[in-house]
Amino acid sequence: MIETPYLLFLGDAVDPLAAKVAQGIRDWRPEYALGQFRLEGCKADMGLPDMDLAEAYAAGARTLVIGVANRGGYISESWRAVLRDALEVGFDLASGLHNLLRDDPELAQTAGRLGRALHDVRVPSVAYPIANGVKRTGKRLLAVGTDCSVGKMYTCLAMDAEMRQRGMKCDFRATGQTGILITGGGVPLDAVVADFMAGSIEWLTPDNDADHWDLIEGQGSLFHVSYSGVTLALIHGGQPDALVLCHEPTRPHMRGLPDYQLPSLEALRDTALALAKVGNADCRVIGISVNTQHMGEAEAQAYLAKVEAEMGLPTVDPFRQGAARLVDALE
Amino acid sequence: MIETPYLLFLGDAVDPLAAKVAQGIRDWRPEYALGQFRLEGCKADMGLPDMDLAEAYAAGARTLVIGVANRGGYISESWRAVLRDALEVGFDLASGLHNLLRDDPELAQTAGRLGRALHDVRVPSVAYPIANGVKRTGKRLLAVGTDCSVGKMYTCLAMDAEMRQRGMKCDFRATGQTGILITGGGVPLDAVVADFMAGSIEWLTPDNDADHWDLIEGQGSLFHVSYSGVTLALIHGGQPDALVLCHEPTRPHMRGLPDYQLPSLEALRDTALALAKVGNADCRVIGISVNTQHMGEAEAQAYLAKVEAEMGLPTVDPFRQGAARLVDALE
Repeated sequence: MIETPYLLFLGDAVDPLAAKVAQGIRDWRPEYALGQFRLEGCKADMGLPDMDLAEAYAAGARTLVIGVANRGGYISESWRAVLRDALEVGFDLASGLHNLLRDDPELAQTAGRLGRALHDVRVPSVAYPIANGVKRTGKRLLAVGTDCSVGKMYTCLAMDAEMRQRGMKCDFRATGQTGILITGGGVPLDAVVADFMAGSIEWLTPDNDADHWDLIEGQGSLFHVSYSGVTLALIHGGQPDALVLCHEPTRPHMRGLPDYQLPSLEALRDTALALAKVGNADCRVIGISVNTQHMGEAEAQAYLAKVEAEMGLPTVDPFRQGAARLVDALE
Repeated sequence: MIETPYLLFLGDAVDPLAAKVAQGIRDWRPEYALGQFRLEGCKADMGLPDMDLAEAYAAGARTLVIGVANRGGYISESWRAVLRDALEVGFDLASGLHNLLRDDPELAQTAGRLGRALHDVRVPSVAYPIANGVKRTGKRLLAVGTDCSVGKMYTCLAMDAEMRQRGMKCDFRATGQTGILITGGGVPLDAVVADFMAGSIEWLTPDNDADHWDLIEGQGSLFHVSYSGVTLALIHGGQPDALVLCHEPTRPHMRGLPDYQLPSLEALRDTALALAKVGNADCRVIGISVNTQHMGEAEAQAYLAKVEAEMGLPTVDPFRQGAARLVDALE
């Protein structure tokens, strides 16, 4: 686990979108976001106090999180000075960059000398077991999508926020780097070795109280030929009691695959549910989450109503409407 | 690729089963099996000439293959002397042991000094791409199973032998360590990082002649919760035109999973075919391969006839009957 709270490093972000990791932390774990650190020319702003390193450390921050992506995923010279100073001041570092902190000789040496942790969340730090399929206590929900990047993480985080507000027992279980940086822990599933994929999800979602829900971030899609194996490992490692179907209705083809059409929500429901029942015969589909960001309000409302009528399941855009109706379906 | 032909190292095999890798090479690639090297007390015999290292090298052998598994998968002292001498004589080494040749300081140093290759086939040696799903030329067959270890490799190797005999263009494509050692190349899929699984299979089965068949060794099962993700990556990376269903009818439960029953052949057919059609709409199931080793002859024949009638597909045990009827179904 990454030590909290965080100082969010926004660097020289070229636009707000470049700082989407920081924005995710700000939105979903505001209690972790103590302040922000910006370099000259930074075009992102989380609306947090700008703090220097000593100030933030004195205020209690313990990890400097690289909340910004730069072109190429490398560690620029202007960043390195800040990261090195942060280690000297007392911070651990956390990063989802393609180039690893641990592979930077200066940072690795400095961290080693001072006993600081370098969290490269793109790579697993745990020797996961092979899945044993044994039924676990507690409840689990998994988001599955018609495609990649249709809102699976957002849906689970929105449900997590709603459930916490209602006082329900739950944990968002991150399976990708952004989710891991937001919540401070998880499994970087796309970097796990094949034989251990399902086992890593069993490890991530252990026995729990009977009324506790793990909200498992989905990855890929059963219908995306590049990543479908990762999705099936989530379904069988996660033993979900509940599935939420996630969809983005305006996409012309599968992400990165121009020759592949998106499946229907019916096909996703039938395929995912049949495979989920192998691991948990009681699994059911509890609702549908649609990302309507590319639709106007009226068009979105009409689309959601149509899907709800056709599928007979609560259908919401959690960004527009919140996740209350999905949580209702769990209760 | 591993250089051929081989000298098969049988070590101090405690019984013939311990040398099953050597037996596989002897059975399926006899042209690679120039001779055998046995230590005092070896209980396995491939019926090949016993050769010392210099003799085998002079006869043309270029790789010493560790064709035997020992308890724990480590490199014993009695083996190390032979392996070191083999490097000195001119051999490369190939191994599927759990402990890697490259991690043995003495062997690594000797191989480095002499410029010999150490092939640890348990670990990938290629930076595989992410799958792009683009349709490839040539034909592909994939073996899928109701469970792990039901005869998928054997089925593909038997089809490969039959097709070669008929003068058909084909390649057995190994996806596990035994298959890689038998044929000299392949992808150790269970050790590939999640994001690259399907891409490794695209890499393994590239564009080919229109009448060429890749016979892709299956792994795991869509119904085995520990490994199902690996299986789906094979289905979507392989773009199979043809599936063979593999089954072992006497198994009381899924391998290693006492609480999980085997699926029916109907369930395997429907699930695997629907998922395969995502990557190749023309995919079809061409036959069924049953491992009847735990049945008497009459019982086996009756079972095969019953399955053939129920499923309406050629149903054979390739060990008892050869794979001719499966190949007929491809032609």
